[in-house]
Amino acid sequence: MRTDEEEIRNLVKAWHAASRAGDVDTVLSLMTEDVIFLLPGRSPMRKAEFAEASRPPPGTPPAKIEGTSDIQEIVVAGEWAFMWTKLSVVVTPPNKGQAMKRTGHTLTILRKQNGKWLLARDANLLGQGEVT
Amino acid sequence: MRTDEEEIRNLVKAWHAASRAGDVDTVLSLMTEDVIFLLPGRSPMRKAEFAEASRPPPGTPPAKIEGTSDIQEIVVAGEWAFMWTKLSVVVTPPNKGQAMKRTGHTLTILRKQNGKWLLARDANLLGQGEVT
Repeated sequence: MRTDEEEIRNLVKAWHAASRAGDVDTVLSLMTEDVIFLLPGRSPMRKAEFAEASRPPPGTPPAKIEGTSDIQEIVVAGEWAFMWTKLSVVVTPPNKGQAMKRTGHTLTILRKQNGKWLLARDANLLGQGEVT
Repeated sequence: MRTDEEEIRNLVKAWHAASRAGDVDTVLSLMTEDVIFLLPGRSPMRKAEFAEASRPPPGTPPAKIEGTSDIQEIVVAGEWAFMWTKLSVVVTPPNKGQAMKRTGHTLTILRKQNGKWLLARDANLLGQGEVT
């Protein structure tokens, strides 16, 4: 049987694999219904907006999103957990647009629902360029 | 007896009061020894660096920091809790420099140590200008 920490690491892997594949439905299945994404310089994003922003317009291939999370810490407290990571994302727009690399940190709250860990609150501090 | 949520709200009030008063020692007493501050576009800040950045050079009056946290959510899970807020900060440099207002969100992990709630991990998404 896997530990909670192992399950959370697998959630992160599944998230990146689904993002890379452009599989928006799978990404959406890895977050709670009441998920909140906090981002610099804008109002909080909820699940419906995340879904809309993730789906390309009809006929357009999705952007390619290659993300790598270097997990720095996971702490489990019952049905809740938190994690912070160093995240690196390379987004390549369709039609051979120029790839853009962004790095920075994330602080994430996870919640176990029906035995499955899901992303529940997420602060994403990614900016342009490199952060060590 | 106060609930954990009330104690966390009082911690936030004490933090802002001490920041406003330039009382760096009190602010430092409100965080764990292993606190981590995550900020956009830079590496994580730990307690020693926070202390150094908060103390003005000898002979210089401290900047005036007026912060207001509009707490959106507090969830307590045993000895851990998380909170997210809408934060507004006005920093006025000494010698009548121009005040700068910054708004944005924070996602914070709190930890109860020896019966006292402390700030343990903090993601600060503040940018320039207003965020609704």
